[in-house]
Amino acid sequence: MSDQTMNREQPTREQAVGTVAGLIKDIKFAMLVTTTDEGHLHARPMTTQQTEFDGDLWFIGARDSEAVHDMRARPQVNVSYADTGSNNYVSVHGTAELVEDRAKLDELWSDMYDMYFEGGKEDPNVQLIKIDARGAEYWESGGKVRTLFALAKNLIPGQKAEAGELGKNETVEL
Amino acid sequence: MSDQTMNREQPTREQAVGTVAGLIKDIKFAMLVTTTDEGHLHARPMTTQQTEFDGDLWFIGARDSEAVHDMRARPQVNVSYADTGSNNYVSVHGTAELVEDRAKLDELWSDMYDMYFEGGKEDPNVQLIKIDARGAEYWESGGKVRTLFALAKNLIPGQKAEAGELGKNETVEL
Repeated sequence: MSDQTMNREQPTREQAVGTVAGLIKDIKFAMLVTTTDEGHLHARPMTTQQTEFDGDLWFIGARDSEAVHDMRARPQVNVSYADTGSNNYVSVHGTAELVEDRAKLDELWSDMYDMYFEGGKEDPNVQLIKIDARGAEYWESGGKVRTLFALAKNLIPGQKAEAGELGKNETVEL
Repeated sequence: MSDQTMNREQPTREQAVGTVAGLIKDIKFAMLVTTTDEGHLHARPMTTQQTEFDGDLWFIGARDSEAVHDMRARPQVNVSYADTGSNNYVSVHGTAELVEDRAKLDELWSDMYDMYFEGGKEDPNVQLIKIDARGAEYWESGGKVRTLFALAKNLIPGQKAEAGELGKNETVEL
């Protein structure tokens, strides 16, 4: 099998963030995967934000949900984006943080959330979630071409990621 | 928040399997999530099979891929299906097994895989993957209505699942 993974020329972190931002910006729901208390992997759709991706992903969740419970105990998560029309897929992995930030909540809140929270933005069950993205992968045309992005914040601006930051240069998945 | 989760009337296992089969049958790629050696959660698109879901999900992967490496060490996986046109999402969790089964491979193989394996079906890198589904969740219309399915094989045919099999009856995620 020829390795079609295109990571010979590593983008800088800011280039990687910009590219991933463009790939996910029109996708309305992402699947958020957490590890449960039993060690199972559970996914659920989460409404994506209109704000442009800058290395952090933000979601509004319910404090009493399984997802928030899981992230409090085990912050490693995966967020995947499917564009099924064109068969393009993005996977982002990173670390979730449960955040209290009124200014950020004001920025992200929209009337759509009133459908989920009886008390609106003031509902005590509203939980702001910040995901510090560490890496992303992008598959075009159903997996034939894979591109890796290093997103770790310890990269100096302009510095190219080390191969080790990107994980194994594996053959393309099906 | 009113709980709109619709699991008051539990389906039997065979009803649940049939319903999940119908939900995923036309979705061409699923995102398969595994836990890496570093404890990160990685996802990748996998070609779904044409055979109807009967409680096991089957995939053909590459033996030298990260996914297969991860599943050998940590078999708990999540497989998610997105129908972005109608905003319907399915999450299946279960246990992966790396299987050698020539008859099953013959059944599942199609010419499409020649694109990924130089040696075709005889390529030593071909790895058959069986996922024993333990549970599934389905969200319609972007998460407003959630349905839970118990798929564990220890359910007696015709028996309804216990609430405990289904996990927490949580409020709807965003």
